[in-house]
Amino acid sequence: MVTSRAIIYSNYGDPLSEIKVHQYTISDPVDDEVLLQSVAAPINPSDLIQIAGIYPSRPPMDTSLGTKEPSAVAGNEGLFKIIKVGSKVKDFKIGDWCIPLHVNTGTWRTYSKTAEDQLIKIPKNYVSMAQATTVSVNGCTALQLLTTLTDVKPGEWVIQNGSNSVVGKFVIQIAKKMGIKTLNVVRNRPNIEELKKKLYDLGATKVITEDENTSPEFESTIKEWTKGSIIKLGLNCIGGDSATGVVSKVSPEGVFVTYGAMILGPVKIPIHKLTFENVKCVGYWVTENAKKDINGKIKSVHEALKLMHDGVIGDIDVEEKVVHLDNLTDEEFLQIYKNAFTDSKKLKQLVVYK
Amino acid sequence: MVTSRAIIYSNYGDPLSEIKVHQYTISDPVDDEVLLQSVAAPINPSDLIQIAGIYPSRPPMDTSLGTKEPSAVAGNEGLFKIIKVGSKVKDFKIGDWCIPLHVNTGTWRTYSKTAEDQLIKIPKNYVSMAQATTVSVNGCTALQLLTTLTDVKPGEWVIQNGSNSVVGKFVIQIAKKMGIKTLNVVRNRPNIEELKKKLYDLGATKVITEDENTSPEFESTIKEWTKGSIIKLGLNCIGGDSATGVVSKVSPEGVFVTYGAMILGPVKIPIHKLTFENVKCVGYWVTENAKKDINGKIKSVHEALKLMHDGVIGDIDVEEKVVHLDNLTDEEFLQIYKNAFTDSKKLKQLVVYK
Repeated sequence: MVTSRAIIYSNYGDPLSEIKVHQYTISDPVDDEVLLQSVAAPINPSDLIQIAGIYPSRPPMDTSLGTKEPSAVAGNEGLFKIIKVGSKVKDFKIGDWCIPLHVNTGTWRTYSKTAEDQLIKIPKNYVSMAQATTVSVNGCTALQLLTTLTDVKPGEWVIQNGSNSVVGKFVIQIAKKMGIKTLNVVRNRPNIEELKKKLYDLGATKVITEDENTSPEFESTIKEWTKGSIIKLGLNCIGGDSATGVVSKVSPEGVFVTYGAMILGPVKIPIHKLTFENVKCVGYWVTENAKKDINGKIKSVHEALKLMHDGVIGDIDVEEKVVHLDNLTDEEFLQIYKNAFTDSKKLKQLVVYK
Repeated sequence: MVTSRAIIYSNYGDPLSEIKVHQYTISDPVDDEVLLQSVAAPINPSDLIQIAGIYPSRPPMDTSLGTKEPSAVAGNEGLFKIIKVGSKVKDFKIGDWCIPLHVNTGTWRTYSKTAEDQLIKIPKNYVSMAQATTVSVNGCTALQLLTTLTDVKPGEWVIQNGSNSVVGKFVIQIAKKMGIKTLNVVRNRPNIEELKKKLYDLGATKVITEDENTSPEFESTIKEWTKGSIIKLGLNCIGGDSATGVVSKVSPEGVFVTYGAMILGPVKIPIHKLTFENVKCVGYWVTENAKKDINGKIKSVHEALKLMHDGVIGDIDVEEKVVHLDNLTDEEFLQIYKNAFTDSKKLKQLVVYK
């Protein structure tokens, strides 16, 4: 039996005011259950908009953890260590590391218990903590965007916006390994040359600004770069004019994918891209894909892990927020999360449990 | 040998000023060739924007008919009678009726010659002239929109804008026969009740205005109508907000199709329809489809013809412009087309050769 501290919420609203701490005891695992100690869990924008109630994927709210009001544990990604196993557990032993198979499991807590088939095992220290906690959503998304929606071949191009996001950078690195060329769109900014260099270092073929991507004059430059090659795939995580800039570059018979973002409003598609050029416009959402095809998800996670392990996908810059499991007050635990929400740095926040 | 009069153009521009008449002689058919006398040919908006040079599908311009400048014969649809056959023609005999397999063959002429494999035979008087000359583009489009892009089942719904177009009305009638419910969007107009009655008489399940389709308040009414049923398919031939109104009603996992029109600008798709609801947005263009799958095209034409013959698809209101083949001056021939272009009536114009 262990006592777990969890970040929970009972109402949808501003994450800063809605989250609270809840302590509860977890009995020993039986049958196919395993007891997990948290190693690390990231704080993602999607976690926050989930608490805000505007994300369509939601964890169940109930009183199963002994809360007065129906509540849910926050957090969707995490890395865990098995510390006890039920008598019928087959695939895990004490000391194994794992990540959750699905989202909505509530990863922002110190200990948890689940059935072994809800977990994906990963070798200890096979990849960094930041990589392990990013592989299931971002790693899987980048890999599946490049491999499951169309057959982009070596020498062909992919165009994407939001290229400086975690998924964007994964796409650059995986594409390079596959021999696929990338045309990467980023917002203009004071340190644009520094950012361009960073993306070129990752393997970007070309990096351009949003202004360039939406400018008719710049089209001839892009045509010169891609001469003789097809832009088979367009990836959009932004919407609005940025999306139009991307879909406009996709070659006839290509695929234009919008994945999990809603920054600049509706995707505007010039009609001739649909009718005369037969560009297919689809959506991709890793959460739903994982439910539809569990084995596909597990396979993608293992592939992405190997790419991380082999250095094809580099490590991720994170800012670590350390939780000391042994001497932890509720207030301190809560404050670590609240501070992370308001932290001004743009780095990914990773809560590490020590 | 016959003398043909053809409506040709040598430059792209305003159809009224670009079209001219050209006379040329046609030698007797040899081998697999057949000599055709025109029975009827419609004047479609797509024919006019083709002459204007803004339609991506264009006939070849050359001097093969003896013109000084490279020229093309206008017109894409028509009904023909075989009046002579080459020695190796297998499937046609004198007196047979036929329509062209593809567009861009130049149908606005009194006589023409082609290879027999470029034609689809249809039984004489099997359908009306207006139906015969509409089946290849509009009939095929309506049938393929309903049957090839997703598997709409009886009891499920299709939503479409432009419901008062020829394709729109074909969709209503074919869907009714298939047991599929239709939600039909039309522009508001003074005689809206009259138009609604006309579409209900064709078999429309519900007819609504553009204003209703884009109004958030009206959504509950639509939900009440479709309760328990899926809106599997959305058909758009308009773009802009009208397209958004249509795609917004398509159920998760459904398909939204834009087919050959560009009236109101880009198709705007709310991001959640793509990401969270996995609605697939595609284009459909009968011209390109026919090239990719000739047998599919022929099959669809025969199916649509049977639906017309059986009365499932009713006849089309057309205004006939009669060309008398025997006593025809160039000026009269040209004027018939020019008058048709400027005719204020909204009926489809059909040039009939007698």
